[in-house]
Amino acid sequence: MRERLDLDALAFDDRGLIPAVVQDAGTEEVLMVAWMSRESLERTLEEGRTVFWSRSRERLWRKGETSGHVQHVEEVRVDCDADALLVRVHQVGAACHTGKRSCFHRRV
Amino acid sequence: MRERLDLDALAFDDRGLIPAVVQDAGTEEVLMVAWMSRESLERTLEEGRTVFWSRSRERLWRKGETSGHVQHVEEVRVDCDADALLVRVHQVGAACHTGKRSCFHRRV
Repeated sequence: MRERLDLDALAFDDRGLIPAVVQDAGTEEVLMVAWMSRESLERTLEEGRTVFWSRSRERLWRKGETSGHVQHVEEVRVDCDADALLVRVHQVGAACHTGKRSCFHRRV
Repeated sequence: MRERLDLDALAFDDRGLIPAVVQDAGTEEVLMVAWMSRESLERTLEEGRTVFWSRSRERLWRKGETSGHVQHVEEVRVDCDADALLVRVHQVGAACHTGKRSCFHRRV
């Protein structure tokens, strides 16, 4: 996977956000989906830890800042139409605020 | 994973859509992210194949209807705040229209 895409080529939506799927790079489990602004993605890439945009609190949200359940970023991928991110991480503790490892613990 | 959530409990957005992460149930690879309306989710559950809502064409989109690259659905999971889906599938052929197995073949 040598091809790289610049941040300017990303298709942020009309709120300036892009969905980010977070996957455990060890177990391959899908942990959560959250949203990133351009700034939160820049911080994520700089700090090597996930930083999202909280739509409810309308501010940057450093994953694990209170829980300690940090996500160390291995790589960030982008899809073919550049409107979704896949963030591969090493998860400390649980991704979900319920204490479960993944937020996807229920079936439809 | 015995807990189940009814479709009425899902948090569709103001366009009536919910993001759906599609993961290969065999390889655990994240294949794509697309959007589902309530109707497309109902069709997906009934038919056992993914049906999405195309935001650009503004109509239901049966994955594989022209390419043959159908996704047979193993299960649909929902996250803790019920605003994202994880669809675990068995992918026929390639998920991406470029011919690649996953849409996430570039790095940021």
